[in-house]
Amino acid sequence: MLGKYLDRVREKMPRIHNITNYVTVNDVANIILACGGNPIMSDDPHEVTEITSVCDGLNINIGTINERKAEAMVKAGLRAVELGHPVLLDPVGVGASLFRRETVKNMLKEFSFSVIRGNVSEIKAVAYDSTETTGVDADEVDAVTENNLDEAVAFAKRLSERTGSIVAITGNIDLVADKSRCFVIRNGRKEMGRITGTGCQLSGLATAFIAASPDNILEATASAVCAMGLAGEIGYSHLASYEGNATYRNRIIDAVYNMTGDELEKGANYEIR
Amino acid sequence: MLGKYLDRVREKMPRIHNITNYVTVNDVANIILACGGNPIMSDDPHEVTEITSVCDGLNINIGTINERKAEAMVKAGLRAVELGHPVLLDPVGVGASLFRRETVKNMLKEFSFSVIRGNVSEIKAVAYDSTETTGVDADEVDAVTENNLDEAVAFAKRLSERTGSIVAITGNIDLVADKSRCFVIRNGRKEMGRITGTGCQLSGLATAFIAASPDNILEATASAVCAMGLAGEIGYSHLASYEGNATYRNRIIDAVYNMTGDELEKGANYEIR
Amino acid sequence: MLGKYLDRVREKMPRIHNITNYVTVNDVANIILACGGNPIMSDDPHEVTEITSVCDGLNINIGTINERKAEAMVKAGLRAVELGHPVLLDPVGVGASLFRRETVKNMLKEFSFSVIRGNVSEIKAVAYDSTETTGVDADEVDAVTENNLDEAVAFAKRLSERTGSIVAITGNIDLVADKSRCFVIRNGRKEMGRITGTGCQLSGLATAFIAASPDNILEATASAVCAMGLAGEIGYSHLASYEGNATYRNRIIDAVYNMTGDELEKGANYEIR
Repeated sequence: MLGKYLDRVREKMPRIHNITNYVTVNDVANIILACGGNPIMSDDPHEVTEITSVCDGLNINIGTINERKAEAMVKAGLRAVELGHPVLLDPVGVGASLFRRETVKNMLKEFSFSVIRGNVSEIKAVAYDSTETTGVDADEVDAVTENNLDEAVAFAKRLSERTGSIVAITGNIDLVADKSRCFVIRNGRKEMGRITGTGCQLSGLATAFIAASPDNILEATASAVCAMGLAGEIGYSHLASYEGNATYRNRIIDAVYNMTGDELEKGANYEIR
Repeated sequence: MLGKYLDRVREKMPRIHNITNYVTVNDVANIILACGGNPIMSDDPHEVTEITSVCDGLNINIGTINERKAEAMVKAGLRAVELGHPVLLDPVGVGASLFRRETVKNMLKEFSFSVIRGNVSEIKAVAYDSTETTGVDADEVDAVTENNLDEAVAFAKRLSERTGSIVAITGNIDLVADKSRCFVIRNGRKEMGRITGTGCQLSGLATAFIAASPDNILEATASAVCAMGLAGEIGYSHLASYEGNATYRNRIIDAVYNMTGDELEKGANYEIR
Repeated sequence: MLGKYLDRVREKMPRIHNITNYVTVNDVANIILACGGNPIMSDDPHEVTEITSVCDGLNINIGTINERKAEAMVKAGLRAVELGHPVLLDPVGVGASLFRRETVKNMLKEFSFSVIRGNVSEIKAVAYDSTETTGVDADEVDAVTENNLDEAVAFAKRLSERTGSIVAITGNIDLVADKSRCFVIRNGRKEMGRITGTGCQLSGLATAFIAASPDNILEATASAVCAMGLAGEIGYSHLASYEGNATYRNRIIDAVYNMTGDELEKGANYEIR
């Protein structure tokens, strides 16, 4: 069921406008290219309306935010929504500062996202406007586990209903939910957490998937999450003993580059709740 | 004829001031180091005049442009030209927004570039102030092919005559022209287009080549274009079946690092029209 | 003696706030993750006070400086010092512009750094407010060698006494000094100088080390310098003949990822003067 969403990216080659942080931007661009999309990066209010108009989807990532970028995010988001383009939000470290929380709140007031993707701390901060989270990484106590899975699934569905967005909570177990269905995904490896930007990369990848399949945002997002996790598994299998997180980063993007829809179909490890 | 230009970079170790986008900046720095140059990145109006004064060449790339950078580009360009330093323009995605087009037009009014390098869409947008191009990638219909090669060569020469700049149009076939001679270059591989920033990297590389050989900008630019393409061929030959665009990116820079002037001399695949 | 400082990073997993340049930021994040720390990047005055408050150490790097970042550096530095967090300064290319020199001078007026780390040109520019240095690379004539080692050690100790900071001067021979003791370190390889950002990476790594061991900043810094050099040696040993600076960059981070405290203890090559 999920493999075809990768094939569609390769067929449609969607252009993805990214307003994203400067830490992981190169990897985001390369993973979008790896899956068959075309990335454009632009974050200035003078041009984002035009830029997003010639694209098929918009990826908004609030890492290394500043006022200029925050203004550009609203402008681009409004235009993309007006044009019916899928828009994804990656609320990087949203719990870590008032500025990030207000940037997200401002956007949520102005328009609705197709997808909100983050780790559990970030998603909870978006949901509760929480100030508890202290950084960009998931608070361990909050992690989705087999023990709290039912509650986590219910939380994701409720948040999706409230926001009107597909909610993707990624971690050891990944959840991708609309208000009534939740994909529980068990692809990936814990070592991916020792690479900077695997979350940002997934957000770029997912934006390409939903831009190519705007008719089924839920499944397209779930497909991207499986593809990222599967790439993490494949990439890891090619690591030599002396290789670590820097090479692993490349191997994951390489694995996306070489992945076929059939391989994704077979390798995707999920259930629907 | 062209191999010696790489040797000269290694001898002179030119300092290259880069005002460039944050997407591909790390690869630009590493490829300049790989060929023997020394990169400095600085994009603030407070300091670019001083920075460019202690360099030997200036690389201006308009990706992820903003007002602050646009102001810095004019300041640095004026100073570099005043000092007789070669200046290269990479008009990334210039067709995609009015802001990018005006940034380029402002610069063209203020000073003349030694080299303008882009894909065919970008170069046409510079030439015709066209609004037809929709993004940072070459529009396929415009691509230089064996069929329209004569027209493309004539276009490149005319644009060089009009702007006073060496014009480098890169794609499957690369053209590097002054008003009377055009290098038609057939190095490289199409898979290079699935890596972010091979164009930006080439612009950095070419700036190092022209800074080391300001007496022959045309040939130095053609040499850099051949070197980049040849590095793409060599890098590809070392890829394992499970490797993709992320690893390929590194292999290309590695190939520049290991390339000798003799190897470039033998591997450069061009004719002059 | 020095191996345990790496173990402590792995135990304490310190959060490191980085205000750094956009050229090498991704590698800085990945090397902090490789050693066991958690990087957060944030450079906006609106949020740096909050961000640094939830971290354990602050890494300030003045590459690609602008006014907004300069303001953020002062704000974050004041708050980090107030909280007793170790703060490191990497004065990238400080000799290259008045703006960089004044940014550093302003910070030195406002607070004291735990560590100042740079190449010899940068450290001399900080010490003498020199305008002699012309770029981001060490001026060869100033390099620390076996011949001028005694003078260099004395210089480092004096500067440490004057600034109250541990002074780390890195190059072929690395010096890490307080006012009375100087680690003279002979790890590393000259090829590391052909990779962009090995200095920036070391500064990120060292900030993780000192944040995990604030009780012994001198030894923690010396340990980080040895670890970086040793990683350079190990990474180089795994390079194929066709690999160059781009792959080498990854191999160094990989080597940090796989390094144990014991290996660092055995591989660290230093004397104390």
